Amino acid sequence: MAPTATFVAKSGNFPLPIPNASRPQLPASLRLALPRHLSVAVAGRLSSVARRAATASCSLIEPDGGRLVDVVAPEGPSREALRREAAGCPQIRLSRIDLEWVHVLSEGWASPLGGFMREAEFLQTLHFNCLRLGDGSVVNMSLPIVLAIDDAQKRAIGDRRKVALVDARDKPVAILSDIEIYKHNKEERIARTWGTTAPGLPYVEEAITKAGNWLIGGDLEVIERIKYNDGLDQYRLSPAELREEFSRRDADAVFAFQLRNPVHNGHALLMTDTRRRLLEMGYRNPVLLLHPLGGYTKADDVPLHWRMKQHEKWHAKSRINAGANFYIVGRDPAGMSHPIEKRDLYDADHGKKVLGMAPGLERLNILPFKVAAYDKKQQKMAFFDPSRPQDFLFISGTKVTPLCL
Amino acid sequence: MAPTATFVAKSGNFPLPIPNASRPQLPASLRLALPRHLSVAVAGRLSSVARRAATASCSLIEPDGGRLVDVVAPEGPSREALRREAAGCPQIRLSRIDLEWVHVLSEGWASPLGGFMREAEFLQTLHFNCLRLGDGSVVNMSLPIVLAIDDAQKRAIGDRRKVALVDARDKPVAILSDIEIYKHNKEERIARTWGTTAPGLPYVEEAITKAGNWLIGGDLEVIERIKYNDGLDQYRLSPAELREEFSRRDADAVFAFQLRNPVHNGHALLMTDTRRRLLEMGYRNPVLLLHPLGGYTKADDVPLHWRMKQHEKWHAKSRINAGANFYIVGRDPAGMSHPIEKRDLYDADHGKKVLGMAPGLERLNILPFKVAAYDKKQQKMAFFDPSRPQDFLFISGTKVTPLCL
Repeated sequence: MAPTATFVAKSGNFPLPIPNASRPQLPASLRLALPRHLSVAVAGRLSSVARRAATASCSLIEPDGGRLVDVVAPEGPSREALRREAAGCPQIRLSRIDLEWVHVLSEGWASPLGGFMREAEFLQTLHFNCLRLGDGSVVNMSLPIVLAIDDAQKRAIGDRRKVALVDARDKPVAILSDIEIYKHNKEERIARTWGTTAPGLPYVEEAITKAGNWLIGGDLEVIERIKYNDGLDQYRLSPAELREEFSRRDADAVFAFQLRNPVHNGHALLMTDTRRRLLEMGYRNPVLLLHPLGGYTKADDVPLHWRMKQHEKWHAKSRINAGANFYIVGRDPAGMSHPIEKRDLYDADHGKKVLGMAPGLERLNILPFKVAAYDKKQQKMAFFDPSRPQDFLFISGTKVTPLCL
Repeated sequence: MAPTATFVAKSGNFPLPIPNASRPQLPASLRLALPRHLSVAVAGRLSSVARRAATASCSLIEPDGGRLVDVVAPEGPSREALRREAAGCPQIRLSRIDLEWVHVLSEGWASPLGGFMREAEFLQTLHFNCLRLGDGSVVNMSLPIVLAIDDAQKRAIGDRRKVALVDARDKPVAILSDIEIYKHNKEERIARTWGTTAPGLPYVEEAITKAGNWLIGGDLEVIERIKYNDGLDQYRLSPAELREEFSRRDADAVFAFQLRNPVHNGHALLMTDTRRRLLEMGYRNPVLLLHPLGGYTKADDVPLHWRMKQHEKWHAKSRINAGANFYIVGRDPAGMSHPIEKRDLYDADHGKKVLGMAPGLERLNILPFKVAAYDKKQQKMAFFDPSRPQDFLFISGTKVTPLCL
């Protein structure tokens, strides 16, 4: 799922107060205990919000498929008509994760996907990690975005062509139309997505193993913008809003930096240095898209299921749709432990390699992470110099985390 | 692995004696008990053989990557030099399956691959089922073609850049140069290739589970053409030889039909009908490439590991390299049982669907199998008419098999 909150800043004017390397002060919002999957913004909501302003400016990267999907009904009669129609449809109650995917789909993070996957999209995602569009072009799609139903739900739907998706309180959220119901081969889905079927992967346990034996795909129409009413909705900017802001700031390059651990001075150096490199490359006004993946900042609460090779591609793809054309990749973006064996599930460098070779991501410039460390000689963060390793103290988000608690 | 023997025939002049539907007479060679993996030809060796005639004629489909790989050293000084060089290299003994892959690679069935995969190719194959070439184009590559070595072999190679590949009697077969050794993550390879890690898949048990923990990739140079000395080498035509024959016959369409079961009258009808359709489409001289996958003709000896979604794509891709531009796909080309559960591993129609959507196979025209059955009214094989199901007797390779023994 996409982190849906954002901070936009020029990294040359890096606003986070990080006084020293050994104990960075984190913005208060990063220390909040938040539900998993939700992201935390470190800046307030943008004042100007453009709904349905889906057209990118000339200088922004095109969304996948050329047009940013936005399937939230506009306020007014059409929204009310949709609400009435939903009341007459068979109902599918969404889990928390399902609802987050409705959110992701509704705002176009998964463009050109306009609803939960039908079987042809599901199979292409599993086998090719990309979707072929009507014009023969290919867009990246590394994660199945699917909705599971069980046998009883399938029977209740019968031969109806539309279903209503409802939240935990049975309030209609969306309509899925022109539906297709097909088998949910869970074992194959898990094996092809994670490269293992060993038990213990958090996302698998929560969203797949117990899910129904059928998947239902179709075109999504969302009644109103998805809100979580947790005090953080104002920080969740849509791709259209981000694009509007990038245009307003006259960005000619947008570089995305996604973090799962607290920001530290190594990150700050990296972001500042990236801006410098982009200016050297001739860009006039590079803008940073800082996308923290929130959640608890305790190491053992970091949502591990974000970190896998497929998800890394998903994160990159969704940033294209938000307007980013540069993507900074960490040392081991896909790193995760094997759920039952004492080893890494993937090689440390595979996430970066696979991302760099992914069909449909050619337009995105991958900027490899340079290793930053505290240089005791210079008494500041600097890029590691292998000729004098003894001068450097290493820091990482994982090491910093306990210091922040 | 590719079936390496072939029969070329105009289906309009179908030469197999199949007098009736209930008990077809099979060509004697199809009833031979052959080692698995080997294919049986039903026609003799072509009289004119072109070695290194790698350029396709105008009317033939281009090989993947534009040039047919042929890495067999020509007879003469360069072959002898290669043999001498091999004697001085660290040696890797090939298993039977490894040797067959050397054969496949050496003749260009896997073009543009010119040797066992390095890690970048292995990862692209696992994740995207295709390889991106230097010019940005994409070719299909659905199966890892890799060579495993164990820890002791890795140590013995040390920092040498070339190794000799030797057969079961330690006779040098090839040199692999500019080598790259990388981790063999067997679990991930199996999960992403088959969509399951359940034990019991024949190819996995034979070629992966017991194999070494490292893979070695590099550029292949084969000392001389791979032969098996089993009396069948004359039937194993290379892609270059097939292309030469298609050109000689002035084919403007080549349609490939691959069988794992004995040929029966339903197949004959299908092949004849395909020729008719191609003529109707305006082709002047369509030629059939009939590619039986041999082995025992007992049902329980059919090499099951041929049948999986990835292998179906591999078969299609290798036929492009042999010059075929039409590919006839059966009802369930990827069908196989789950190794430990009582169900099919994949949906019956997924093999065909995935094949039709595979990146890099756009140039290949997929001709879906029409269901043929014995029409009791017409007293001959005919395409099934769903309006009068009671008139049809169904026949399939699996049903025919016991009749042939």
